[in-house]
Amino acid sequence: MADTLSHQLIAAHLVGGEMIPGNEIALRMDQALLQDILGTLVMLELDAMGLDRVHTRTSVQYIDHTLLQQDNINADAHLFLKSACERLGVWYSGPGNGISHPVHMERFGVPGQSLVGCDSHTTAAGALGMLAIGAGGIEVAMAMAGEPLYLAMPEIVGVRLEGDLPDWVSAKDIVLELLRRHGVAGAKNCILEYHGPGLATLDAMDRHVLANMGTEMGATSSVFPSDEVTRDFLRSRGREADWVALAAEPGCRYDRDEVVDLSRLEPLIALPSSPDRVVPVAEVAGEPLHQAYIGSSGNPGYRDIAVVAEIVAGRSVAGNVSLDINPSTRRILAALIDEGHLGALVAAGARLHQPGCNGCIGMGQAPAAGRNSLRTVPRNFPGRSGTREDSVFLCSPETAAASALHGVITDPRRLDMPCPRPREPSDMRVNDDWFEPPLPPEQARRVELLATDNTPPLPLIAPLPETLEIPVLLTVDDNISTDDIMPAGARVLPLWSNVFASAEHVFEAVDPGYVARAREQGEAGHAIVGGANYGQGSSRENAALVPRLLGLQLVVAESIARIHWQNLPCFGVLPLTFADPADRARLRQGQTLRIEGWRDQLAAGRRVVATLQGGETLSLTHELSPRQREILSAGGVINWLRQEETS
Amino acid sequence: MADTLSHQLIAAHLVGGEMIPGNEIALRMDQALLQDILGTLVMLELDAMGLDRVHTRTSVQYIDHTLLQQDNINADAHLFLKSACERLGVWYSGPGNGISHPVHMERFGVPGQSLVGCDSHTTAAGALGMLAIGAGGIEVAMAMAGEPLYLAMPEIVGVRLEGDLPDWVSAKDIVLELLRRHGVAGAKNCILEYHGPGLATLDAMDRHVLANMGTEMGATSSVFPSDEVTRDFLRSRGREADWVALAAEPGCRYDRDEVVDLSRLEPLIALPSSPDRVVPVAEVAGEPLHQAYIGSSGNPGYRDIAVVAEIVAGRSVAGNVSLDINPSTRRILAALIDEGHLGALVAAGARLHQPGCNGCIGMGQAPAAGRNSLRTVPRNFPGRSGTREDSVFLCSPETAAASALHGVITDPRRLDMPCPRPREPSDMRVNDDWFEPPLPPEQARRVELLATDNTPPLPLIAPLPETLEIPVLLTVDDNISTDDIMPAGARVLPLWSNVFASAEHVFEAVDPGYVARAREQGEAGHAIVGGANYGQGSSRENAALVPRLLGLQLVVAESIARIHWQNLPCFGVLPLTFADPADRARLRQGQTLRIEGWRDQLAAGRRVVATLQGGETLSLTHELSPRQREILSAGGVINWLRQEETS
Repeated sequence: MADTLSHQLIAAHLVGGEMIPGNEIALRMDQALLQDILGTLVMLELDAMGLDRVHTRTSVQYIDHTLLQQDNINADAHLFLKSACERLGVWYSGPGNGISHPVHMERFGVPGQSLVGCDSHTTAAGALGMLAIGAGGIEVAMAMAGEPLYLAMPEIVGVRLEGDLPDWVSAKDIVLELLRRHGVAGAKNCILEYHGPGLATLDAMDRHVLANMGTEMGATSSVFPSDEVTRDFLRSRGREADWVALAAEPGCRYDRDEVVDLSRLEPLIALPSSPDRVVPVAEVAGEPLHQAYIGSSGNPGYRDIAVVAEIVAGRSVAGNVSLDINPSTRRILAALIDEGHLGALVAAGARLHQPGCNGCIGMGQAPAAGRNSLRTVPRNFPGRSGTREDSVFLCSPETAAASALHGVITDPRRLDMPCPRPREPSDMRVNDDWFEPPLPPEQARRVELLATDNTPPLPLIAPLPETLEIPVLLTVDDNISTDDIMPAGARVLPLWSNVFASAEHVFEAVDPGYVARAREQGEAGHAIVGGANYGQGSSRENAALVPRLLGLQLVVAESIARIHWQNLPCFGVLPLTFADPADRARLRQGQTLRIEGWRDQLAAGRRVVATLQGGETLSLTHELSPRQREILSAGGVINWLRQEETS
Repeated sequence: MADTLSHQLIAAHLVGGEMIPGNEIALRMDQALLQDILGTLVMLELDAMGLDRVHTRTSVQYIDHTLLQQDNINADAHLFLKSACERLGVWYSGPGNGISHPVHMERFGVPGQSLVGCDSHTTAAGALGMLAIGAGGIEVAMAMAGEPLYLAMPEIVGVRLEGDLPDWVSAKDIVLELLRRHGVAGAKNCILEYHGPGLATLDAMDRHVLANMGTEMGATSSVFPSDEVTRDFLRSRGREADWVALAAEPGCRYDRDEVVDLSRLEPLIALPSSPDRVVPVAEVAGEPLHQAYIGSSGNPGYRDIAVVAEIVAGRSVAGNVSLDINPSTRRILAALIDEGHLGALVAAGARLHQPGCNGCIGMGQAPAAGRNSLRTVPRNFPGRSGTREDSVFLCSPETAAASALHGVITDPRRLDMPCPRPREPSDMRVNDDWFEPPLPPEQARRVELLATDNTPPLPLIAPLPETLEIPVLLTVDDNISTDDIMPAGARVLPLWSNVFASAEHVFEAVDPGYVARAREQGEAGHAIVGGANYGQGSSRENAALVPRLLGLQLVVAESIARIHWQNLPCFGVLPLTFADPADRARLRQGQTLRIEGWRDQLAAGRRVVATLQGGETLSLTHELSPRQREILSAGGVINWLRQEETS
């Protein structure tokens, strides 16, 4: 039978399990990607494991989130991470090189290889024909230690692109259309595999936009063929030798099929505060505007900034709008300078920021309260901008630029000019000294970790007792994101390397009393009850680890987003779902749940029975694999690995 | 008798007093400069005065300190300030335009005019032949309301520059040499008037470096002639019409004379953590390096960044160094892009930041704890970088760039290349839409102030009781800066518009217990005892206002820096000095001071007698003018203006 490209990539890395959707499979990982706010924990985990040197072919630590440096904590963390890279054989990409995802594509991405990263947008490398998956840091640590990555075999969704994009419509509008159709959980446990004639019109960074934001639909990954477009991209970076042709075999069958006729798309926009609240820009045209934010891994391409420059060139941004430009990579910034685009932006009144994640993760550029901010970023969860009462829309660079010029939300088709179609220069090679290669092993062994008070060793996690009898301390709505659980932003991000300090901030915007209640309950433990798509968004493992340290033992939800669901047992938390979603209403805050002999119940099948106060029973379900049950039993991955070593 | 240029400028603006050193004089102010962190208080003060429209010819509000925007507070403040500008007839220069001092020179500076600004480096405009003085915000508010600026007639120090600068020595080294000679209080109550043949080799922004950092010696102002160099500068900005020739009259006599032979200078560096700890770079060459920071009003010129670009062009910054580039103005950034310098910097591995004050005021780019940071900024007070245990050196761009390349502190004369001498392009004109001009009065009156929770109205200050009997709650060392009193940095700066929130941070790095002791003592009041040069550095008026709101009634010190000394009575605090500096040891924390009938004592002469516990007496002195005594009697300027209105 003809294979999809996804099946080919999975088969090439499969070291366990069968490729049947839902089955747990084990995949060998060629590459690992670490960013700074989660990389610190990964390095502490690798240190706890006593690892000498990473086993992955290529591992790279990026400094891209913690660039503000309002005190020494971030700069100290950079030194810690650099020392860890030197000791463990990891590449180090320092501050100023840019956002991990586009930089990884430019410098390290290899079609056909597998990549795991402790960032949910790691999937972006699928744009090059990689099998790229975001995971919790502890799973990345395991992959770096030579263990496989385990996941449920996804369904493969074939997304066929037909036709050509009209003027003023670009890659962001394609993925917004998919979000409009399927919502933020619409691709859970799926790989979105793009194919069809429309692909040829999308350059590698356009594809990155789609592969990146597959995560916003909950996709396990997104995959593009490696074709002439891919070859051009690698050639322009001086890496044509890394290119191989990859494509689905003709006649292959997808588990599901989806068609997007590019020629019928129009400029789209996601309303505050969810990426799937998508409407045509025309519907909100004329609304007031305060900020237009360009950048992030959601629109990282040269053309994504160049097109803004061509729109504003020779004119002036409206006085009421802050047009914030965030180049994604150093190479792209250099090219924008060389081609005159940066000059045009500065002359038109734009504000220029350093290459990095920046405002996309709430590190600066926070808008005024209640004022509309149009952003080309992938996410607009409430408060993620850094402003608690924010009003963030997601859109294409064309829409953001047109709106910045007119001072109100504007459909770019209303601009009185020909549609610009800037193309990346053919030579994007630059100085490679910005990347510090792994040290030779004998040198590496002599490097000392530069730990600080803000990188304390991880505490041990106690395994769950045989019978859980715990109160519900928090009930939350649908689509709670890991941003809600473990806030980001300039105030909290620098503390992520410190599980004790960051514990103060868990769920702070959802329920500021939660931490105090959890501390009062202490080691006796507690449960959290969620709705649909609980734990969506970023892959941050501290959204599982830190609540566990606060006493969380059990999450019951209507459904749990994939990466968070995987993170929970890795840190000793039992994730269950309601057999009947209507039962959610029975679990109020203060209710006590009793689950007798959970190990045996999990081993016996998918059903788990709980008893409530007064003796009523509640039917729950689990989807944990035998391996995950073992890990959970041990109290998480670190205990489990220690048991393995001593057994 | 032939007049110095300073005498000419003062005479042209004199509306009261005699030009005898030490006498209080009153000067008409043509222009006012506001920056954002202190401008909020000024706008609140103008609002409290009920002012309809400013009386100054040109007033400009700059957004340059609060650019990080980690939450909505800064962006909200920008909207507040913009609305205040629209209402009061003030120019608004939004975020991204750059640092107030160089932008003001480029866009608004006019030789011969007077300028007062709520920023101690306002003096930089002296580079254009302006009479430019930094003051507390309340004095700027009064000037904007049409009142004169009062100050003690300074001594005029003639600084004659002779000879030519050697290769690798630039303007920063000249002012470091003056700091080496005279220390951080060496020019108190002086105007430094530059003259001599060496001037011709310094362009307008080089002169800005010297005029700016006169403040670091405590100078009231610095003055340069308006000559062909000045004309070139204005011509390149499209403002040649604003030029007039100004110079000292031949044969004029200065109160003091100083000579600097430029040809004998070498690269200099100020060691942590005071601008006057100056040694030759050669003495510390080879010390390890962590950061090289380029930018700020201490080295704002095109050439200050271009020279760094020429040094690193085609090479790579050392892997252990973060080379941080902070363009000072949008025009200069645009020119650096056009001339290829920005591209060279980015290619060499530099990090690029938005035009603004940034790390100079602790807003980002804070170094790792205890690691050496070389900076071209004007100040290196402890902790000002944002890092409490910082190690900041001040030096020229040449020294910083050479060190960034070599990875250790390096004398630039050791570079193996010809000394670059980049010159500004002759046309630096650009889009003027970035500046929002004052609204016509009829439109202005309809504008509502966009106040927020973080811009609460100022509370009333009670006048001091007739007899003070108060404990000393804090004794501090010499050279306490206003940074020590009212901290800056990304954490505290956004709170400056809110006197209640910022009160929590007063003296926090000096004595974290002070605020609690002051609150306990409450309205009963307390005293602070200082050493020499108390209150040096920035002009921030909240270093007087906020301690007053905490109960401060009296400062006794060996000497008090000029601007802070003026701010204290403006907010109802009595500033006194020891008649005998040795008496300082008698005033320990906990000691009680009694000053009977202070109004009468001040009126009777310079001496003030205090009684200590046990009945010993202590002899103190004051230098307050009759006007200042009236203001102090009223409980500060706002009460005083209200009394005037009702009388």
